[in-house]
Amino acid sequence: MTETIHPVRLDDENDAIVILDQTALPTKTVYLELKEIREIWDAIYTLKVRGAPAIGITAGYGVYLGAKKSRAHTVAALYEDFKKAKNYLETSRPTAVNLFWALARMESRFAKEASKQVTEIKAALREEADLIREEDERICKAIGENTLCLLAPGWGILTHCNAGALATSGYGTALSAIYLGQHRGFGFKVYADETRPLLQGARLTAWELHTSGIDVTLICDNMAPTVMNEGKIQAVLVGCDRVARNGDAANKIGTSGLAILAKYYNIPFYVCCPLPTVDLGCQTGGDISIEMRPAYEVTTQWFSYPMAPSGVKVYNPSFDVTHHSLISAIITENGVVSPPYSVNLPAAIKRT
Amino acid sequence: MTETIHPVRLDDENDAIVILDQTALPTKTVYLELKEIREIWDAIYTLKVRGAPAIGITAGYGVYLGAKKSRAHTVAALYEDFKKAKNYLETSRPTAVNLFWALARMESRFAKEASKQVTEIKAALREEADLIREEDERICKAIGENTLCLLAPGWGILTHCNAGALATSGYGTALSAIYLGQHRGFGFKVYADETRPLLQGARLTAWELHTSGIDVTLICDNMAPTVMNEGKIQAVLVGCDRVARNGDAANKIGTSGLAILAKYYNIPFYVCCPLPTVDLGCQTGGDISIEMRPAYEVTTQWFSYPMAPSGVKVYNPSFDVTHHSLISAIITENGVVSPPYSVNLPAAIKRT
Repeated sequence: MTETIHPVRLDDENDAIVILDQTALPTKTVYLELKEIREIWDAIYTLKVRGAPAIGITAGYGVYLGAKKSRAHTVAALYEDFKKAKNYLETSRPTAVNLFWALARMESRFAKEASKQVTEIKAALREEADLIREEDERICKAIGENTLCLLAPGWGILTHCNAGALATSGYGTALSAIYLGQHRGFGFKVYADETRPLLQGARLTAWELHTSGIDVTLICDNMAPTVMNEGKIQAVLVGCDRVARNGDAANKIGTSGLAILAKYYNIPFYVCCPLPTVDLGCQTGGDISIEMRPAYEVTTQWFSYPMAPSGVKVYNPSFDVTHHSLISAIITENGVVSPPYSVNLPAAIKRT
Repeated sequence: MTETIHPVRLDDENDAIVILDQTALPTKTVYLELKEIREIWDAIYTLKVRGAPAIGITAGYGVYLGAKKSRAHTVAALYEDFKKAKNYLETSRPTAVNLFWALARMESRFAKEASKQVTEIKAALREEADLIREEDERICKAIGENTLCLLAPGWGILTHCNAGALATSGYGTALSAIYLGQHRGFGFKVYADETRPLLQGARLTAWELHTSGIDVTLICDNMAPTVMNEGKIQAVLVGCDRVARNGDAANKIGTSGLAILAKYYNIPFYVCCPLPTVDLGCQTGGDISIEMRPAYEVTTQWFSYPMAPSGVKVYNPSFDVTHHSLISAIITENGVVSPPYSVNLPAAIKRT
């Protein structure tokens, strides 16, 4: 298996979580050792670790370390310390679904082992946190394998935002096939949209692919139609934040435009999607509410001086919804899902 | 007639060209008085004045001032001083077509008046420079009137880059109808693409519209499909750098993508085009060569620290070509030109 970047790992010897500080990228590669629960909270809060799966993994290890360091001699006292760590970490990023999901899973495991000894419970928590990480790794690799079936050697691949190793346990979702393909000599040429306003494509995707020795070219978002028109792109691969039952996919702002451009240029447009990201309760993309972000991200952030007149109105939606009719296939850990998605997505979930 | 920003004007009392320093925008509104030919050269070279028509007007006034300040008593000596100024200004921005065109026009006028007195020749040069400015103003206003016929009150208008007052004698091409409409109570809601990488939309278009009291909202380029999908946009208006005989239009990178999105959302896409910008010798957009710009504009410029890993490949084309099939109409000073452009563009030029 090809090597990848691991943004989160447990260091047993030092009882620490080691994370790659994503706020220092792309200029500096800094690994931080997080020992105290306060440091872990801070790393999530300040986006030093980001990407839904990576946050979940960090939180899992976080509550495990909280429990491990407890001096409690009784299960009740251990549970109290565990609960304190869990409640505290839940406040680090209130909108991150994976954070709550991972912490709830850790608590369920605790409950399941509650009749055992303190040391046994600690070992079980360690195991559960590892399982969360391993499961994410398994999903990412399966999505990568399923994606790779749809690609051919030498293809140009366009991607948007960061759905890569940095956002997960490693490999990523949309970038997983790129890493697997590199190991197998596919020689992909990747084009990375810089992804305004927060530049995750420039700062993170270009960094992780460049660091891994993959042929990557950075473009501004508005250059995508030009590289498509020039025949440089044979497939578009993106991740997703939430997928409705009918296949409408919410992802970083700019994704829906790429899908329209891909349709115009007759290029397949694939959404790489872990099945837990499918929300069957959500009938269409119209049910997905879009987070609005502050104006300074567009006018001021990153810049050495403001780039827009003071007081000008700014519209800054963080995500958009890609209509299912523009999506060639939704690639999951349980295989490639074709339209009609409202039938085939629930079927893929049932196969889990 | 509604008031507009004038980026270039002659100050007779002080024998100076007064320009609005576009490099200081949007944070500072600085007017510079240029008296020496070296200062005029520098203002063009450093992009303090930019936009093809505005550069032509500055160059026209520049050689006029060069001649006016000459102490020559003979026509031959005056011509020598004039020629020195012309040759010098020609080196300020070697690729700007309007620069050479305006300077050649000034020289033709000199040749036509060569039998007259020194003072008469100086007056004729002054008149010719004014004519260049007035002609641009006339073209911009005519394009504005012709565009306005296609728009309705309350419409949302999307624009890209800066084809506004700052690039011309005033009014602009694509923004001309916005200024005229404002005076007549059309109440347009303008959406300005920030226009990566050089951010002319944020720094210049948002500034000039905001300053003029027009309802303008800044978006990142990749948010255009979202505002279109939300029904906020009823027309797209853009300028152009060169238009081929068949209607293919070269303009700032990102324009062709907007045209594809507009087609998808069934929104009219108009190219505002002074007829001198039509190149009948150019059969299709394939004949237009696209300027490639340096990587640092994408990775580093404007930012307080680099936003991409050092050494990553960057693709940075400055312009793209919009296929004529995506253009609803090309709006000129001689009227609205409909397809087939290869027939109707030459006919519009003949009407001049």
